[in-house]
Parts: sequence; C-alpha cells; structure tokens
Amino acid sequence: MTTPWDDLWIDAHLATMAGNGVPYGTIRDGAVAARDGRIAWIGARRDLPDAPVRCARAVHELGGAWLTPGLIDCHTHLVFGGTRVGEFEARCRGDSYEAIARRGGGILSTVAATRAAPDAELHRSARERLRALLAEGVTTIEIKSGYGLDRPTERRMLATARAVGRELGVEVRTTYLGAHTVAPEFAGRADAYVDFICNEMLPGLAAAGLADAVDAYCEPIAFTTEQIARLFTRARALGLPVKLHADQLSDSGGAALAARFGALSADHLEYASEAGIRALAAAGSVAVLLPGAWHTLRATRRPPVADLRHHGVPIAIATDCNPGSSPTLSLLLMLNLACHCFGLSPEESLAGVTRCAARALGLGADRGTLEVGKRADLAAWRISEPAELSYWMGHNPLLEVIAGGKHVISA
Amino acid sequence: MTTPWDDLWIDAHLATMAGNGVPYGTIRDGAVAARDGRIAWIGARRDLPDAPVRCARAVHELGGAWLTPGLIDCHTHLVFGGTRVGEFEARCRGDSYEAIARRGGGILSTVAATRAAPDAELHRSARERLRALLAEGVTTIEIKSGYGLDRPTERRMLATARAVGRELGVEVRTTYLGAHTVAPEFAGRADAYVDFICNEMLPGLAAAGLADAVDAYCEPIAFTTEQIARLFTRARALGLPVKLHADQLSDSGGAALAARFGALSADHLEYASEAGIRALAAAGSVAVLLPGAWHTLRATRRPPVADLRHHGVPIAIATDCNPGSSPTLSLLLMLNLACHCFGLSPEESLAGVTRCAARALGLGADRGTLEVGKRADLAAWRISEPAELSYWMGHNPLLEVIAGGKHVISA
Repeated sequence: MTTPWDDLWIDAHLATMAGNGVPYGTIRDGAVAARDGRIAWIGARRDLPDAPVRCARAVHELGGAWLTPGLIDCHTHLVFGGTRVGEFEARCRGDSYEAIARRGGGILSTVAATRAAPDAELHRSARERLRALLAEGVTTIEIKSGYGLDRPTERRMLATARAVGRELGVEVRTTYLGAHTVAPEFAGRADAYVDFICNEMLPGLAAAGLADAVDAYCEPIAFTTEQIARLFTRARALGLPVKLHADQLSDSGGAALAARFGALSADHLEYASEAGIRALAAAGSVAVLLPGAWHTLRATRRPPVADLRHHGVPIAIATDCNPGSSPTLSLLLMLNLACHCFGLSPEESLAGVTRCAARALGLGADRGTLEVGKRADLAAWRISEPAELSYWMGHNPLLEVIAGGKHVISA
Repeated sequence: MTTPWDDLWIDAHLATMAGNGVPYGTIRDGAVAARDGRIAWIGARRDLPDAPVRCARAVHELGGAWLTPGLIDCHTHLVFGGTRVGEFEARCRGDSYEAIARRGGGILSTVAATRAAPDAELHRSARERLRALLAEGVTTIEIKSGYGLDRPTERRMLATARAVGRELGVEVRTTYLGAHTVAPEFAGRADAYVDFICNEMLPGLAAAGLADAVDAYCEPIAFTTEQIARLFTRARALGLPVKLHADQLSDSGGAALAARFGALSADHLEYASEAGIRALAAAGSVAVLLPGAWHTLRATRRPPVADLRHHGVPIAIATDCNPGSSPTLSLLLMLNLACHCFGLSPEESLAGVTRCAARALGLGADRGTLEVGKRADLAAWRISEPAELSYWMGHNPLLEVIAGGKHVISA
C-alpha cells in the first residue's frame, strides 16, 4: 500500500449502529481505520487488505472491547449558574411547582444565578460537567442558551459552550434558546419579548456564528404557537434550523408546529398527538425523548413510543442536563431509564444516542454510525455485548474515547 | 496538649447525621479529629481547644467541602459470575419472568455462572465493583452469598467478599444467603435443602467465621415462613443474627417473621402489612428499601414509607447490587431513586446510607454518624449542601474517603 491509514483499531467487536438490519450493526472481531480524522475502512479483521502493521502508522489493540460510535448528547442546558437543590428539597417535602415559583424558584432562579455567575465560574462549572459526559464516551454535544434572556448573558452562555468544547476536544453544537421563558424585564409582555429576540438578539448571534440552531419552549406556561412561529420564521430567514420543546406537559400542538418548520427535532413529546407525530414523520424530524426530566418531574404520562415507531419517526435520547428538571451528568443512565421507563429496547436506546442523535443535530451524514467517510468518533467499552450499556444503571464501563481520529481519554 | 490527635480535618461543613433534631446534624465550619482510627473530637472549628497545628500531627484543609459519615451499603450481592444482560434484553422485548426462567434464566443462571467462574475472575470482578462503590464514598458494605448454593461456591463467595474488602480498605460484613433459592441438586425438595443448609452448611461457616449474619428469601416462589423459621432458629443457636428478604412481591408475612427473630433488618417490604411493620418497630429491626430493584423490575407498588415513619422503623437504603434485579454500582443513584420513586426526603435518604444502614448491620454503636467514639469513616464531597447527594442522578461529587482514620482515596 502506498498510503497507509493513520490509525487502525483491532481486537474489538464493532457496534456500527449502521441501521443495516443487523442488530447493532454488529461486526465481531472487526477493525476500523481512520485517515485525516475520518473512517477510511471498516470491516471484519480477516478482511483487512494487509497485515495490520502494514495498514496504518499506529495499530491499537483493544483487548476484546466493544467499539461504538462516540455518543451524542443532543439536548442539554449544560451551561448554568447555581443549582436548584433547594427547590428539589422543597419538592421532596411536597411543595408544588406553583408554590416554588411564587418564592422565586423555577427557570428564573437559574436565570438570576447565571447572570450573576462570573465568567470564570460559568466556564469552570460547564467544563467540569462536560468532562463528566466525555468520561462516558460523549464526543458531540448540543448546548442551549436560555438562562440569560438578556444580550450579554445569552452571548456569554453560547461562547462558554463553544470554549469548553474546544478545550476538551468535544464537538459542541450551540442552540439559541432565548424563548425559554419570558425575560423578567419583559414580564407580562411576551409578545414584546419575542420581538426583542427576533429583532435584537437573533440577527447578531447569527452574524457572530454563535448559534447553530434556534429552540423554543412551546407550552401554555411559556410561549404560544403563534409567538414561536414568528421566531421560527425569522430563524429560517437567517438560515438557522429550528427545534422545539414540544408537548411536554400538555398537547399544545408543538409537534405539528415543529414539523411545519421542518425542525431538526421535537423534544419531550409526552403529550404529542398522533397527528403531530404523523407530521413529524413527514417532515423528517427526530423525536428527542428525555427520560431524566420525566423521572425528576415524577411524570406519569409516557411519550408515545409505539406511535413514533409506527410512523417511523427516529427516536433520540438525551440527558436534558439542567439544574431544575434533569440534574444528571450521565448519558448512559438515560439509556437505562429509556428502557425501563419508556419501554425502548437496548438497541433503540443506543441508536438514540448515536445514529438518531446525529440526525437530531443535522449531522446524520457526518457521524453517529461507524461507516466509511464518517467522522472517526469512537468509544471503546469493557462490556460483553452492546446491551450492557443500557443494562447497568450507575456504572461506566468506558475504556477510551477517540474523537475525530484523535485519542481523547482513557479510563 | 500532651497527646495531640493523629489527624484533624478543617475547612469543612459537617453533616454528622447524629439524629439530634438538627437537619443532617449540621455543623457549619466544623472540625473533626481522629485518634487511633476513632473520632476523638468534633465540633465547630472555633471551639477547637487550640490552634489546629497544635491539635493534631496532621491537619487537612478541605476547601469548604462537606463531610458526611462514610457511606454504608447494607444489602448487596456483589460477588457473582457473569451478567444477566441477555435476560434484560429479553425483558425489554416483553418476555415474562416465567418465560425467561423456563429458558434457564433467573437466579439459577447466575448460580451456574458463579459456580463456573474461576477464583481469579470472581475476585477480579468483585474487586472492580467494590472499587466503584468506594469511589462514591462507601466505607462499609454488606455482601451476601447465595449464588453458589453448594458448599464450595458459597464458601468461595464469602471468602472472596472478605478478601476484596481487605484489599481495598473497605469493611465487609458477610451474610450467608444459602436460602436464596433451592439449589438445583435439591429441585422439588425444598425441605431437604433447608435441612442441608441448617445441618451441613451453617455450622461450618459459623465455625470458620465466614458469615456475620444469615439471610433468606421469604416468598411463595422461594421459601415458606416455616422453612425460614427453622433456618433462623438454627442461626440464632449458633449466635448469628438474621435478616430477611421480606414481602417484596407479595405479603408473605415476612416482616412479622423477621421481627419474631429480632432480625437486624427486613428488606424490600413493598407488600408488608401494617401489622408486620408494627412488629418490626417493636423488634427494633431496620427496614431496608431497595429502589434499584424496584426500578429494574418496573414495580408499581411502593414500600409503605408512611407506615414505616409512623411506627418509627428506621429506614435504610442500599444498592441491592446484583446481576438480575439491580445491576447498579452507584449508591448515590439509590438516594435519588429513593426520593423520586419512594418519596423519601434527601435527609432520610442520606440517613438511610449512614445512621440507619449502620443499624441494619448491627453496627449502630460503632459507625454511621460523626460522633466522638465512632469509627473515623468520613466522605468529603464537593457540594453546596447535603441534599445535593440526592439531587443529582448520575454524578459523583466525591472528593476523598477516610476509613478508620486512614486516607483511602482521593477523586
């Protein structure tokens, strides 16, 4: 061979997640090669074109580990100030959300804490959280703004998200979530606030390249479908894809709204109607299910998994990491919750944080499976079969992480 | 001072869990001193008798961390061969327990895997699991046998449990659970098997000092109350305290049976009657709740927490770590599940893995709180308040662990 590959991983089983009908896209005793950060070859080891040492500059033996695509956490609010532990304790005492909100709890308490957090503290805490996710094999993560709701803090959140990703070698996709809740300065004037984010915030963030997408919270307690349609129209005009917190607490027509704007994803969906799901399927949008929030809110209504399957909507799973409704730093735990709480299969769960999560970020052609041409994002696991990633709760069998062909961490 | 303490920890807040009416037994800006592995002084730092450096040979500044008692996992099946991931996947597909058992799944499949596991593999896997628990602040753990059901394997399990504890500096309390299920050699002859464990197994294990207690599984699918009464009578005659897997799947009179024999604890208890709970209260037995098994089995009936509180039964929480119904290595996650699934408060959850867990092992006078004379088992946490230990799911804020006055690990 005239040009060997840069790296070759052998002595591993591969869960390619290629969606090719083979469970987990499994290749036993496989090999993966990378060149220039992309997968250049993948297959059974016995089909390698030459002896491993003649195939690549560096050969890595994985001792019988399983390789999966690097995990993708496609819905997080990772950058925030403070915690909401006091609110958690009050809820455990039986206090209602309303009572907590009246005392200044809820999203607005995190807005206050995030605005007050010095840059260094915001950065340090976000980096620690991202490090925890990386230690479970996450190589791509979406991070939303939405705890600033004013110009400086929203920018600070998005810039912090980008910075911690660069620092740790994790690819960060940022989402502008100005429409998380009405900013305190606009209390009682939701339409004026939507005007502000459409006209004052969004163009500047788009021009600065700080936002890869735009998200909103569609719920009677947040924004109406009309307000969000206005925002989404503006986002699309600026060339930004959209996604939506939809039908989490009530059937607010969120799924249909997301579909109408060709959203990358509609997220939560506990109360989505079948018509909404049909619309998502037609639009090619991904359903992002968030079992951590479901568990923390002690919800009882499960997302309509059977309908999603029936209509062929891809299902992604994410941490929804946030200090109020999903204080978690474990994407693996979400796989376990997705199986036990939502009835997903272990294979669906793993697809939910690989192939389908990539699609939820508009990156389906670029990553999320182990296939030639895809980004060489790999996670190696000390497990006997891929279902173990969902089977354990509170256990991290990670061995190492490769992102863009580069070794990032070893356990 | 003529004899200074060995070690002094300062610059920390203390959650002593002393049960003194103060939430978490909190002492802000506290200090703890140890001599000869025991707590020699504890209080507010300002009340120290002298400057720190003149109080102890070594002074440790904890940077504002919180100190709790070392955590106690009072119900585990940590030593086992194999996994039950295939069974998990089948259950996710909707297969019933009965169908799985007919195919050779369930406890007996772990019995087969444990019998077949070489000593070194049994030891290595148990050590890895114990290391994961230690990394979350566990300094005392109970480990049961019950996957051998024959003489050599039950002894091997108990000896392995002791060995890994010595190796990692974690105190292990062993429990003989021969009455986990009927051994395959005695299929259909449960009474003969109970005779075997009473007459052939128990005396030898007691004489060898391999078992600190005796446990049994009281359920129509396992052993009757009469069979267990026979076993417990024998255990008490040999000077061994008892505990019981009670009323997990049905009200089998387990709580009352446990109380009748002055059991250290009755565990699971989802279906315990109020009469049974009253009996536990009168006997001074601890209720050990196991939210990991509840979650994994997708149970719906919650343990009777209100009745337990009403009758003053101490409530402990444990991982129940086992490959079938609770594949977890995170005691912290159990705190979160206990709050969200069982309605415990964060303070009750923490008491459940400290003060009450110590009582569940008969060690209430020796450990489980930070008080003078108790074993110097400490866990230091990077948290803003003790409720954070229950608030997060899938996050480990451990800073360091001290066991018997000795520094065991740093994060």
